[in-house]
Amino acid sequence: MPDKLKHVTTELELIDRFAAFLLRSPDQLNRLHESDAELIRLGPDGLILAATTDGLVEEIDAGLYGDPELVGWMTATACASDLAAVGAAPLGMLVDVTLPAEADDALVAGLAHGLGEAATAYRLPVLGGDMNVAAGLRTSATALGLIREGRPLFRRGAVPGDRVFVSGPLGLGSAHALSVISGGEPIPYRPLARLELGQGLRGLATACIDSSDGAIAALDELMLRSGVGIELNRDIEEVLHPAARSAARLARLPAWTMLAGPHGEYELMFTAPDEQSDAVRAVGETQGATLIEIGRVVERPGLRIQIDGSQVELDAGEVRGLYRDSGGRVAEYIERLVRMVR
Amino acid sequence: MPDKLKHVTTELELIDRFAAFLLRSPDQLNRLHESDAELIRLGPDGLILAATTDGLVEEIDAGLYGDPELVGWMTATACASDLAAVGAAPLGMLVDVTLPAEADDALVAGLAHGLGEAATAYRLPVLGGDMNVAAGLRTSATALGLIREGRPLFRRGAVPGDRVFVSGPLGLGSAHALSVISGGEPIPYRPLARLELGQGLRGLATACIDSSDGAIAALDELMLRSGVGIELNRDIEEVLHPAARSAARLARLPAWTMLAGPHGEYELMFTAPDEQSDAVRAVGETQGATLIEIGRVVERPGLRIQIDGSQVELDAGEVRGLYRDSGGRVAEYIERLVRMVR
Repeated sequence: MPDKLKHVTTELELIDRFAAFLLRSPDQLNRLHESDAELIRLGPDGLILAATTDGLVEEIDAGLYGDPELVGWMTATACASDLAAVGAAPLGMLVDVTLPAEADDALVAGLAHGLGEAATAYRLPVLGGDMNVAAGLRTSATALGLIREGRPLFRRGAVPGDRVFVSGPLGLGSAHALSVISGGEPIPYRPLARLELGQGLRGLATACIDSSDGAIAALDELMLRSGVGIELNRDIEEVLHPAARSAARLARLPAWTMLAGPHGEYELMFTAPDEQSDAVRAVGETQGATLIEIGRVVERPGLRIQIDGSQVELDAGEVRGLYRDSGGRVAEYIERLVRMVR
Repeated sequence: MPDKLKHVTTELELIDRFAAFLLRSPDQLNRLHESDAELIRLGPDGLILAATTDGLVEEIDAGLYGDPELVGWMTATACASDLAAVGAAPLGMLVDVTLPAEADDALVAGLAHGLGEAATAYRLPVLGGDMNVAAGLRTSATALGLIREGRPLFRRGAVPGDRVFVSGPLGLGSAHALSVISGGEPIPYRPLARLELGQGLRGLATACIDSSDGAIAALDELMLRSGVGIELNRDIEEVLHPAARSAARLARLPAWTMLAGPHGEYELMFTAPDEQSDAVRAVGETQGATLIEIGRVVERPGLRIQIDGSQVELDAGEVRGLYRDSGGRVAEYIERLVRMVR
């Protein structure tokens, strides 16, 4: 969600440019963008290390996580959710914190407390880290996990006919960002990385990603990496979190726009064939996740959603790029977004 | 080297405060500050994962790495050197880059090129990372390594009677920082992480650390973690890099001050008993490192150095804290530093 980047373009393009200079590890199982975490084979016995790093920079600068405890919680959740999306068992994390010069005890204690709560909830101990001082609070964390046997989950692998599931209602990420930016009623926002669900889905799901960058971005990645299309077969209202539904109504925005923003809710979005759907639901129940079946993978490329009983085609790539293309100007972004569906 | 931190105190104290909130991993082999990288047992067969994260924040803000290629090189070197100091074989790294909004192609290409060169030199492929946009360039990287059998190296474990070695001449980190800050003749600075040497030292060295925070900080850590003292038995001039010797003369500073600054040269500093010293030298020769024996571990706490043939006691803890205690004001720092030895 950068509102800047004048001379260089998108994060994906930047990462591709970087990658052109770099040698690859022969032990890495995923290519660029193919999985939420990097996957490295550690030896001949099938042991796989999952590693992923995520920085909270734009989110903090945009004021999305005002409370230091939420910053700490989200620092852990962002990287833990990537472990979940590859189905890795948590090993631990390394945390980088850059504190502003004017940091007081409340900030330090709040960060540490939020981080500690998440570490306990996810069984993802803080193994170490680094601490620096500069203008502006920044955090980032690297999560490490293990897959002892079997295949990890990738973003690719979805097959036409597969059902599309999410691990919980969508739209809370956009709704939260909207409430913060518009100065409205705060929306309770404390996403949970779905580590146990992710582990249970290995061998059942054909493709998996988290909705950390918003639901439509996640759908777009699943489609791109598998070369397929997706049709949502439930009305948008039904897949939205109640708080996101209210937020949309309050702001007089169409419900579907709550899936569009670049700030997500860290649910898992995954595909599975018909014959695995009972097993998938059973895993969801065991892990306390309310799985929602939202659609089908289809051969014909593109994203089609259900609005008031009609099927609407949505350019997921354009939706994803719109915040950047609007130069981060929120009013312009929302206006252009709404105009995409008439 | 923060010149700030008003309400909170030192990095070590901050980390300790953080740690108080956090659960520990039962599989972690090192406690806080006991090793340059975190060490996690992966299974019953002795496989150990080494993981370490290092951010370049104060260094970039202080202008120490003006050239983007050097920023890229140092991003990799800082974390690779921590792998070296525990004796791990390199696996790969994850890189976080925060680009300023005004980043141009030369900055992006320079960073990527420096990083790519280091990745190749260290056989430490970039596995993935994260990219953000905000005010001010920042980089950090997490290095991952493996120890397949045997014990890792720790900062603790030095025993009175052990010899103290370094993997190359010291003082280049301070000399480089001095030249940048004083606007003098630039000093060639491109440290090399000693990954192969570190692996060769396992089973031979009793304790090991890198000199990333300066030589005296490294000596202080070795002493603190093992509860011992260290006596340097070579004249300071002999352990200094020639460029550091010249820089000290040019600035009319005592030679020993080149060991004192908080910016180091990423040499390994380690201890080994007499009976291992031939084996240690053989490893050094195999790995192309010019090992220098600089002193002895002694029972009596404290650091004693040789200046013009006389033994001088130096408060290593005070030296380490002096940059911070001087509020980051370089002139005041240097004046107070020089006054410490009369």
